[in-house]
Amino acid sequence: MGEHDEVFCAVYQQAIELIGSRWTGAIIRAMLGGIRRFSDLTAAVPGLSDRMLAERLRELEAEGIVGRVVIPEIPVRVEYHLTEKGRALSGVIDAIVSWLEDWAEKTPAPLVRNG
Amino acid sequence: MGEHDEVFCAVYQQAIELIGSRWTGAIIRAMLGGIRRFSDLTAAVPGLSDRMLAERLRELEAEGIVGRVVIPEIPVRVEYHLTEKGRALSGVIDAIVSWLEDWAEKTPAPLVRNG
Repeated sequence: MGEHDEVFCAVYQQAIELIGSRWTGAIIRAMLGGIRRFSDLTAAVPGLSDRMLAERLRELEAEGIVGRVVIPEIPVRVEYHLTEKGRALSGVIDAIVSWLEDWAEKTPAPLVRNG
Repeated sequence: MGEHDEVFCAVYQQAIELIGSRWTGAIIRAMLGGIRRFSDLTAAVPGLSDRMLAERLRELEAEGIVGRVVIPEIPVRVEYHLTEKGRALSGVIDAIVSWLEDWAEKTPAPLVRNG
């Protein structure tokens, strides 16, 4: 493997693991659907806690995928939005949804994790 | 959110987290590139240990993404291949590669994790 391939391989692995982190894929999908407020995001993703959402939003901000906007009203309102880089992930999300539509029902996996 | 959406959301989240598990994306990408043998896979993915590869291959077999073929030669040879469901993930992988080509250089992230 050449040096370029090795660097690309590391970047690729980092990207796919970021998108696939617990909750991250669901958060991005909800934001692509137009959800912008913290409490609406926890409501949209079943099981997602405030603490985990805050952590994921910080990671996505650090990667330039999510931006945080403070709206100077009284009381102050905070909104999160996908950056251009973040919106460009819609191609990845669409590909996963399309793969699931083709394959999810053919080999059903357990939907509920107990414990 | 309707019941269908909630079920779909769970299936989607499960799929994206499976693909994004540590090493899994890199293993699938190597297999899409034609690599079929255990030792060639560990060689192709820098940092991947035998133990982790064995664990990931078991998970991917359980999901119907990877099949294991025993070739009755002396000594016995084992090969791993992507099933039709696994090969269909190429759309997802292509979408991630395309996103990276557009965005990876614009916000460089550290490539090397120490420790």
